Amino acid sequence: MKYYSKEDLNGLPPRFRAHFINSVTGYKSSNLIGTVAENGISNLAIFSSVIHLGSNPPLLGFVLRPRTVTRNSYDNLKRSRVFTVNHVNTEMIEKAHQTSAKYDPDLSEFTEVGLTEEYLNDFKAPFVKESHIKLGCTYQNEYFLEENQCIFIIANIEHIYINESIQSEDGWLNLVEAGTVTASGLDAYALPKILDRFSYAEPGKKPHSIK
Amino acid sequence: MKYYSKEDLNGLPPRFRAHFINSVTGYKSSNLIGTVAENGISNLAIFSSVIHLGSNPPLLGFVLRPRTVTRNSYDNLKRSRVFTVNHVNTEMIEKAHQTSAKYDPDLSEFTEVGLTEEYLNDFKAPFVKESHIKLGCTYQNEYFLEENQCIFIIANIEHIYINESIQSEDGWLNLVEAGTVTASGLDAYALPKILDRFSYAEPGKKPHSIK
Repeated sequence: MKYYSKEDLNGLPPRFRAHFINSVTGYKSSNLIGTVAENGISNLAIFSSVIHLGSNPPLLGFVLRPRTVTRNSYDNLKRSRVFTVNHVNTEMIEKAHQTSAKYDPDLSEFTEVGLTEEYLNDFKAPFVKESHIKLGCTYQNEYFLEENQCIFIIANIEHIYINESIQSEDGWLNLVEAGTVTASGLDAYALPKILDRFSYAEPGKKPHSIK
Repeated sequence: MKYYSKEDLNGLPPRFRAHFINSVTGYKSSNLIGTVAENGISNLAIFSSVIHLGSNPPLLGFVLRPRTVTRNSYDNLKRSRVFTVNHVNTEMIEKAHQTSAKYDPDLSEFTEVGLTEEYLNDFKAPFVKESHIKLGCTYQNEYFLEENQCIFIIANIEHIYINESIQSEDGWLNLVEAGTVTASGLDAYALPKILDRFSYAEPGKKPHSIK
């Protein structure tokens, strides 16, 4: 196997290292975060750092870097206390990727990339009409990560919209049927295929397939 | 679309809610974290919360819950300050899943599930021989998430081992060629297929494929 030491990693060209390290931890979620500014202009930005934090209460987390395009999302959600999380699906990967361009704050990425803004049940942040799984979230807390000045946001999942057909009897969502994609590195999008689901693991007992 | 309000979510049976909320944020990474106890007994546990945090310096994060099987991992890595992150691949999903069983701390999950422990370049934590992408990490910091008593660990990526053939010229790793799987919910494993890679997004410019 090829080995990279800490010194090797430090010596890599920055762009090479960014592609490398962004892909080395494995597959990531791919979501569009929708917010709205005080002047009513909506914002949409792609994130690959949204993670599950807990089911009871339903909590998610995501990481954002200050001083980047995502700063608009942060300012908006801090002010309004609400945002949406919308799964990127196969049909919109190019448009979703394009939301990472540094647009002027007077422009809405919805219009610029060609996705449809929708407001549901009086929730104050915009959802992406084209998404098959969408969450309405409220800001809960944030942790400043002193190691690299990132901000780790914690939010409550309070509203969920799904295509009913993708939910199995035990609650699990079949993301393959929803067309949800996964992100790899800075710029790759992939479509998974379920290999298997396994029973709850217990010592001395072989897990069986529950697919 | 089917709508779940906050009240609907609160009223769900706990197991249904766990499957639902664990899958609703999208695909997750799937990694085995290897540690060793003071008495020399190794520990291996599957995690779906490992995320990229930064490339310069190379940092990753992951979430762990106190009072679960993963507590062994935490005690070990806090004491030894080192651990490994090993990609789960298609050939080992059943064994990897089985590491989530609550084994007696006197037993090594490596032996119990049938994966091979290896020590590389004097690094003090055990790697998984069968993994095609493995990282040697050092503990950097932790944040206690008061919302649900989880611990968010931050670590330095200091050693990387990869099959050379999976790295492209720009540094990106082709996780499909590595057989790396993604996790969905509590118990599903999926194998992605790359749809596309896109150029760096700029306003007013259509991204082009760089696959």
